[in-house]
Amino acid sequence: MNDAVILLSGGMDSGVLLAWARARFDTIHGLYFDYGSKHQEKEFSMAQILASHYEAAFTRIDLPFINTLFSSSLLLSGGDIPEGPYELDNISSTVVPFRNGIMLSIAAGYAENHGIKTVLIASHGGDHLIYPDCTTGFTQAMSKAAGEGTFTGVTIEAPFGSLGKKDIALIGRDLGFDFSTTWSCYKGLDLHCGRCATCLERKAALDHDRGLDPTEYMT
Amino acid sequence: MNDAVILLSGGMDSGVLLAWARARFDTIHGLYFDYGSKHQEKEFSMAQILASHYEAAFTRIDLPFINTLFSSSLLLSGGDIPEGPYELDNISSTVVPFRNGIMLSIAAGYAENHGIKTVLIASHGGDHLIYPDCTTGFTQAMSKAAGEGTFTGVTIEAPFGSLGKKDIALIGRDLGFDFSTTWSCYKGLDLHCGRCATCLERKAALDHDRGLDPTEYMT
Repeated sequence: MNDAVILLSGGMDSGVLLAWARARFDTIHGLYFDYGSKHQEKEFSMAQILASHYEAAFTRIDLPFINTLFSSSLLLSGGDIPEGPYELDNISSTVVPFRNGIMLSIAAGYAENHGIKTVLIASHGGDHLIYPDCTTGFTQAMSKAAGEGTFTGVTIEAPFGSLGKKDIALIGRDLGFDFSTTWSCYKGLDLHCGRCATCLERKAALDHDRGLDPTEYMT
Repeated sequence: MNDAVILLSGGMDSGVLLAWARARFDTIHGLYFDYGSKHQEKEFSMAQILASHYEAAFTRIDLPFINTLFSSSLLLSGGDIPEGPYELDNISSTVVPFRNGIMLSIAAGYAENHGIKTVLIASHGGDHLIYPDCTTGFTQAMSKAAGEGTFTGVTIEAPFGSLGKKDIALIGRDLGFDFSTTWSCYKGLDLHCGRCATCLERKAALDHDRGLDPTEYMT
């Protein structure tokens, strides 16, 4: 048995990771976490489409305590999403404390419960400076904790950990991945806003200026 | 500021840890997790009493997905709690996969959100051979992950990590701790059953045979 659990947010990174994993694992279990973000509905519908397309089992896990107890502009309970570049000073308000730690620990428990050894996360190098729970050092430490804390020695892997977002876009293109079935914008409007940090990052990765980005933006 | 977050289950180990921490920290935030165990109502009422007595902030966090998705006889969705000694073969069915990893990661996020650096857990040596997420190796790896994955470098500490349950009982007695305000029995009946593994372990730690245990058991 060569199965994997994948954190499937409905974004382009985890979507490409699912496509990448499809050829490498027999059964894939996609976990979608609803932690009360403003863009939750959009993300969820994309995650469903991706799981269906790549024939992954799909489970939604609700974590309502995050929206209630934690402070972040990413959350429904938080302030406005900032606009402008994807840099720490600008988007530090969007940090959800230890979000990847929480999701990975639940995924590790889910994996052990189902006899699965591998958990995949689409962390990448572009996020390292902004989100501490996206760094290679964090993922490695979390993998060690999962290994120590489970009977089966669950491991956590971030295959894109040393890549940038543009590298992920290229991998997706090589795999024939449909980027229009992913959602990035933090605002959760009907269309991608085109101006928040994650929209600007998406445009850059997908070569929007060269006309290669299938996303429909508001601006 | 010298504050701490503590995992407060309402059992004797976390209760004594709270009493121990009271003299060491200015403000203590107790987190109680309801993950759908059979003894949840009993544990919760004891955790409330303990938090009130030791003047700790108290938050209950519901994790309904554990009862739905995970398999364990400890859960409302699981089979019968086994009776007999506290040994791996006997009580392996009570394992909830990576439970401490999940609770600690949420506690680490809560700590970062509140500007608190220390998370305390009452893991002890008596549990090492049975629950992998109670070992010193696990706690240390999880602390490393929390440190790497938060801006503030949250650390996880298990002050009783190298002690046995009887040592914890002695610490509690030195601190004038009232063991009758704690709950251990996995069955969640009106009284401690006195026959399940955790009741037998409690009796041994509290010197039940010598008449030093204030707990009222069914048998």
